[in-house]
Amino acid sequence: MRPSSSPAEPAEPAEPAGSPPPGLFDEVLARGPVRAAVDDRAWLAALLTAEAGLAQAQAGLGMIPPAAATAIAAAAQPAQYDVGSLAVDAAGSGTPVLPLVTALRQRIDPALREYVHYRATSQDILDTAAMLVSRSALAVIRRDLETAAGHTATLARRHRNTAMAGRTLLQQAEPTTFGRKAAGWLVALRTALASLDRVASTGLAVQLGGAAGTLAGYQEAGPALLHAYAAELGLAEPVLPWHTDRTRVAELAGALATTAGAAAKIARDITLLAQSEVAEVAEAAGGPSSAMPHKRNPVAAVSALAAAGSAPGLAATIYAAMTQEHERAAGGWHTEWRPLRELLICTGSAVSWLDSCLAGLQVNDAALAANLASMLTTVALREPAEAHTAAAAALVDRALADTAPTDGEARS
Amino acid sequence: MRPSSSPAEPAEPAEPAGSPPPGLFDEVLARGPVRAAVDDRAWLAALLTAEAGLAQAQAGLGMIPPAAATAIAAAAQPAQYDVGSLAVDAAGSGTPVLPLVTALRQRIDPALREYVHYRATSQDILDTAAMLVSRSALAVIRRDLETAAGHTATLARRHRNTAMAGRTLLQQAEPTTFGRKAAGWLVALRTALASLDRVASTGLAVQLGGAAGTLAGYQEAGPALLHAYAAELGLAEPVLPWHTDRTRVAELAGALATTAGAAAKIARDITLLAQSEVAEVAEAAGGPSSAMPHKRNPVAAVSALAAAGSAPGLAATIYAAMTQEHERAAGGWHTEWRPLRELLICTGSAVSWLDSCLAGLQVNDAALAANLASMLTTVALREPAEAHTAAAAALVDRALADTAPTDGEARS
Amino acid sequence: MRPSSSPAEPAEPAEPAGSPPPGLFDEVLARGPVRAAVDDRAWLAALLTAEAGLAQAQAGLGMIPPAAATAIAAAAQPAQYDVGSLAVDAAGSGTPVLPLVTALRQRIDPALREYVHYRATSQDILDTAAMLVSRSALAVIRRDLETAAGHTATLARRHRNTAMAGRTLLQQAEPTTFGRKAAGWLVALRTALASLDRVASTGLAVQLGGAAGTLAGYQEAGPALLHAYAAELGLAEPVLPWHTDRTRVAELAGALATTAGAAAKIARDITLLAQSEVAEVAEAAGGPSSAMPHKRNPVAAVSALAAAGSAPGLAATIYAAMTQEHERAAGGWHTEWRPLRELLICTGSAVSWLDSCLAGLQVNDAALAANLASMLTTVALREPAEAHTAAAAALVDRALADTAPTDGEARS
Amino acid sequence: MRPSSSPAEPAEPAEPAGSPPPGLFDEVLARGPVRAAVDDRAWLAALLTAEAGLAQAQAGLGMIPPAAATAIAAAAQPAQYDVGSLAVDAAGSGTPVLPLVTALRQRIDPALREYVHYRATSQDILDTAAMLVSRSALAVIRRDLETAAGHTATLARRHRNTAMAGRTLLQQAEPTTFGRKAAGWLVALRTALASLDRVASTGLAVQLGGAAGTLAGYQEAGPALLHAYAAELGLAEPVLPWHTDRTRVAELAGALATTAGAAAKIARDITLLAQSEVAEVAEAAGGPSSAMPHKRNPVAAVSALAAAGSAPGLAATIYAAMTQEHERAAGGWHTEWRPLRELLICTGSAVSWLDSCLAGLQVNDAALAANLASMLTTVALREPAEAHTAAAAALVDRALADTAPTDGEARS
Repeated sequence: MRPSSSPAEPAEPAEPAGSPPPGLFDEVLARGPVRAAVDDRAWLAALLTAEAGLAQAQAGLGMIPPAAATAIAAAAQPAQYDVGSLAVDAAGSGTPVLPLVTALRQRIDPALREYVHYRATSQDILDTAAMLVSRSALAVIRRDLETAAGHTATLARRHRNTAMAGRTLLQQAEPTTFGRKAAGWLVALRTALASLDRVASTGLAVQLGGAAGTLAGYQEAGPALLHAYAAELGLAEPVLPWHTDRTRVAELAGALATTAGAAAKIARDITLLAQSEVAEVAEAAGGPSSAMPHKRNPVAAVSALAAAGSAPGLAATIYAAMTQEHERAAGGWHTEWRPLRELLICTGSAVSWLDSCLAGLQVNDAALAANLASMLTTVALREPAEAHTAAAAALVDRALADTAPTDGEARS
Repeated sequence: MRPSSSPAEPAEPAEPAGSPPPGLFDEVLARGPVRAAVDDRAWLAALLTAEAGLAQAQAGLGMIPPAAATAIAAAAQPAQYDVGSLAVDAAGSGTPVLPLVTALRQRIDPALREYVHYRATSQDILDTAAMLVSRSALAVIRRDLETAAGHTATLARRHRNTAMAGRTLLQQAEPTTFGRKAAGWLVALRTALASLDRVASTGLAVQLGGAAGTLAGYQEAGPALLHAYAAELGLAEPVLPWHTDRTRVAELAGALATTAGAAAKIARDITLLAQSEVAEVAEAAGGPSSAMPHKRNPVAAVSALAAAGSAPGLAATIYAAMTQEHERAAGGWHTEWRPLRELLICTGSAVSWLDSCLAGLQVNDAALAANLASMLTTVALREPAEAHTAAAAALVDRALADTAPTDGEARS
Repeated sequence: MRPSSSPAEPAEPAEPAGSPPPGLFDEVLARGPVRAAVDDRAWLAALLTAEAGLAQAQAGLGMIPPAAATAIAAAAQPAQYDVGSLAVDAAGSGTPVLPLVTALRQRIDPALREYVHYRATSQDILDTAAMLVSRSALAVIRRDLETAAGHTATLARRHRNTAMAGRTLLQQAEPTTFGRKAAGWLVALRTALASLDRVASTGLAVQLGGAAGTLAGYQEAGPALLHAYAAELGLAEPVLPWHTDRTRVAELAGALATTAGAAAKIARDITLLAQSEVAEVAEAAGGPSSAMPHKRNPVAAVSALAAAGSAPGLAATIYAAMTQEHERAAGGWHTEWRPLRELLICTGSAVSWLDSCLAGLQVNDAALAANLASMLTTVALREPAEAHTAAAAALVDRALADTAPTDGEARS
Repeated sequence: MRPSSSPAEPAEPAEPAGSPPPGLFDEVLARGPVRAAVDDRAWLAALLTAEAGLAQAQAGLGMIPPAAATAIAAAAQPAQYDVGSLAVDAAGSGTPVLPLVTALRQRIDPALREYVHYRATSQDILDTAAMLVSRSALAVIRRDLETAAGHTATLARRHRNTAMAGRTLLQQAEPTTFGRKAAGWLVALRTALASLDRVASTGLAVQLGGAAGTLAGYQEAGPALLHAYAAELGLAEPVLPWHTDRTRVAELAGALATTAGAAAKIARDITLLAQSEVAEVAEAAGGPSSAMPHKRNPVAAVSALAAAGSAPGLAATIYAAMTQEHERAAGGWHTEWRPLRELLICTGSAVSWLDSCLAGLQVNDAALAANLASMLTTVALREPAEAHTAAAAALVDRALADTAPTDGEARS
């Protein structure tokens, strides 16, 4: 795959103004900025951006009149389209692209209408829009992920030497430090970040091929148009149209599932450390309970786990949908749409909750010390406890030294 | 589990009036009546029904004043509540129940407010609402499934003797009849129907246990209340509160995934039979293509496959979420919400598209005959072709004879 | 589907004598009797049983000479066949049935050879063998499951009144009793048991259809043979051959995944209760650690969780493989084989470990009391603690009263 | 993560001599060299390599006597150990490492025994062995994958201009060339190859941390040992012990699932092209059928689909198992073992079958031409057919030009 070009101003989908109210479970399971990044308005904007970008690239190559590209860009204003009626009309052809093209044409000079969606196929536009939506979503997920990584770095640094009981198979085992634990979280988040960044920088490509993926509608200029289109949108230029080569969608799914898993591990640790009987940490803003006003629940960690729990199954759905027939699939492609959106949402939600969970996490030094003391009365260590914590602290330094590029705190 | 009582008038969640417009992909992937059955308004109605039903049952047992139950029922009008603001407030506690209870209390006489959500926990109400929503969704799914089964029965009967090439490993193999093929579809749909019906009749239960699942808030009257609550809502009465025993949710998921798989098998067959080179069937209303106006795509079958493709991963998510801690879980329970809704949607959509696909399916006798004739020139059968088709036809009779209870056509 | 007939002596696959040594991870992840029930020798025996049973049924109907059935039965001795060479030859056709038929024919009188596998197709035999193997596996899984249920019933009865802290979101919440907790486990296991039993009694059917699923090779006698074959093997008689109707495999998968999930919930609770800081239970035989001789790990519960963790993904694979083409599939059918075996293994292993975990589980009354006392100093209950435990105890009675049919202890 | 060092001779697990016979389904679903690469003997060898490598690294740093490392290396001969008895003893601690250490110690001078597994924990060795096994498996998978890519490149080149009907939604749509179709396969395989290579070069790391992941047993020398150990085995050096940071296992799973999906797409295309009614390709060695001697089944493509069908669910299991507790997990870690092995097997099998399928794939020019001609009578193209095929051919060149690094043919 060729690296994505980086135009001065990437044609980002217009930021939706005035978000719709959240759905009933959205503030729990579709939380944070990712929701708006993947909602219907974002998709509509991305579809229009894809159409306008294609026209712009085509005009640049003299395939369509410049006036057509200008008219299309002018008409590609999301606010002018009604998602509901596009959706209703989508049932006929199986995608919302055909009705959108019809609607777009109605908004421009009849003489230029033929240049809308010029020689493209619905999947060209929808896949490109999916990449634009994914780019926006990855951007906000990575921002939250970097913040979360920054929190773990801070915890690692601050509690570098804070001795505590290390636990294996949920049994107290040997001493470690809270900083070492946080450093482990940091390294996992950094791996996830690298994975997302790799996908974002080379995996998100424009789609363009026409009905059978040959670019035949553009004669010899097909490859040049592929290049120009990619440059226009700031996405990668694929070697070939990828209508039924879904490896890039699979890699996106894998990076997201890995990220969700990394977040879930941390959240699980925190719910365990926050147990009444352990009490080593507490969330800054624990949540209330309808039946038990006295409780202080680790709502953020629980919600991060809840969101992340959907990721493995969604990734599996996307992998299973890779078996796409011939030049364009009979089902597998459509299958991707909801799971991809859901996977972006659940990963983004997990990371957003993780931020809330880690921000201001209260570490209870007394409980750490007491649990460790209790452990030391029952286990016989080969080395003195201090040797354990010194070794743990050295690993904190090692992790932090490797951290600079993704440590949000260090940058701010 | 005890059988669900059947009150004269089950307290069905109020039918939502005036559906919201569909989301961008909804007419493809969230199609048919299931969408409204599981949307936020349906959930809100179900949550209110759960609260009102609980109050009614409590009043019947003298736990709360009859006036409180009356007031709660009067206030339990979905239209008076704003999903968006409930959703925003849900973030604090992790569920929308606490804000709903607050809102409900504000709508009734202060002297009676303490009787709202009396001694219940949020999960009691949310799980009960999930069962009510599932009941509504299963009802519409089963209706469509019965219609689809009726279509296959009609095809089986009509084409009992219509000889065609049977295919194994996608190779022509031995003769069969189109009726036999349709009879196979019928039997699979009937199994799915039986599976859904079993879950609907015994698997959907009220939830009630209070914070730790002991029913302690109701003293000795807990079991009686459980019984009355179940009777009030027409749901099954569980042996115990099932806050962290998710076997009934798992069984629901399994029945839905089985149904989706049965639908997908039929849709796959139809996309294969509709291939240009095979041309044995065509959908009554094939869909257009943005790039190729000449094509007649099997949009309904493709969309059924697309929807059904999400079911396995969603079922896996629900199975994985069964590992719920102690008396109420730290994540796994919340994890269920979106996947359960999605699984109902994708199964319902697959079945709805299957109906469209099968209704008026055009069977091309000439193509069937031509393909069979071509096969007979290349394969050497042990028995004459007529013996094959006669045997196939006999199996059609056998399947139809077993069909009466679920054959929509026979009933209408 | 018609109920399975119950012949006086069902033709159970011969019990393998002298088990092969376990694989490297088998005593952890393929534990207990299920391993032998699904291993290659069990499969070979089942394949031979299927061939012999078919011949017996055919002889009974006069389709083949009685001497052929006798000869086939005599030759159907697993010890006479080499799995390895059958396996090597399986690559040619994609299944081990064709080489097995060849080998079987070589062992009988040439004049009778044509009656081996008479008019059947490979899938007829393999699917029937899969059902026989599943029946054996379900039998041992249900036995262990009943034992586990018996252990939970004993714990429920013994600790009916043993007060402890109930926990929600991993926070101490309200009092309950250990008996109530165990009763919740019992009810979940009973649901799983009922689910397995339902599948075992009506879901496991013979397969017979011939190449295209018409039974054409048997002329008018096909349905009679289907009936006789089912009676011979003690499996259910299907309405139609089910070569590409995999709903019964899906239902089996669902019941197994539900069972694994029920086991995992209990094992998770036990690992949490066994935490050093909680210490409310300990396994009778906790395991050692290579690095920390002092530790007593809850190895059985951990291993149960480990085994059960594979079930959701395997069930999803089976659901996804339902989309099988035409009369016999191009891939999906073969896909089932390993996941089905793995799913039986992991579910059986989880249940086997659960038995070990629950047998002699040590309940630490002092720790239960101390943790509860600690909780009572921090939470303000609406009812006295005694009211909570009395309510919990009443639920124990309710669960036990409902238990008779599956309570292993009560029976012995 | 730090890049893996590349010692002159990486300590590869000894190649097992004399493979055991295949299991009953192994030549179909556990096919090719991957089976031996991940079998028990390979695992045993890898465990011993991990122990010996650790001792070597420790001796190099003066932690243990050189004689101990020499003795351990001498005793680390897989043939001297009995997998079965190690397996039986594994049940006690939950892993086979403890019994292996015991057995290893028995084979060396008592005075040196304490230096076996010096200050390591079982997971250090098992995870390291898992990485060694994965490295071997990836090596053979990538070899087959490169061969398969070479086949597709050859097909693309040879059939650059071979016009055929392009198909969308399983309907004939617009012309393309067979070379363009093969080029699409090539690009997908190349993406998979890059994904596997990335994991192989940076994702496979030694594991070393001791019981609580602090390296405390090695005092200040822990990090130096981590470095030396990685160098010794030719694996990457992790920033921190990764006992409960499973992101690298998740990335491995993702790369494998992506590879399996890429293989499945090609195999699906071939089963469709090989349909009797399409007949555009045939496998060089199609398989026989037990019921229909006349058939020539696309056994290799079917088997590739069968194997690949397990990958999504297995990857999901590994993602779900990432939620590992504290310093070492209570279940999730053990959960990985079988699914990781199965995922390597099913991916490797799919790729191995794909090689067989593509090697000598017969392309039927006459059928391609006839189907295209048929299509051209029914569809009205905007451009002449030649424009389509010329555009398709240009894309072939584009794909081949990008291919050099992974095109097996070009290299040989």
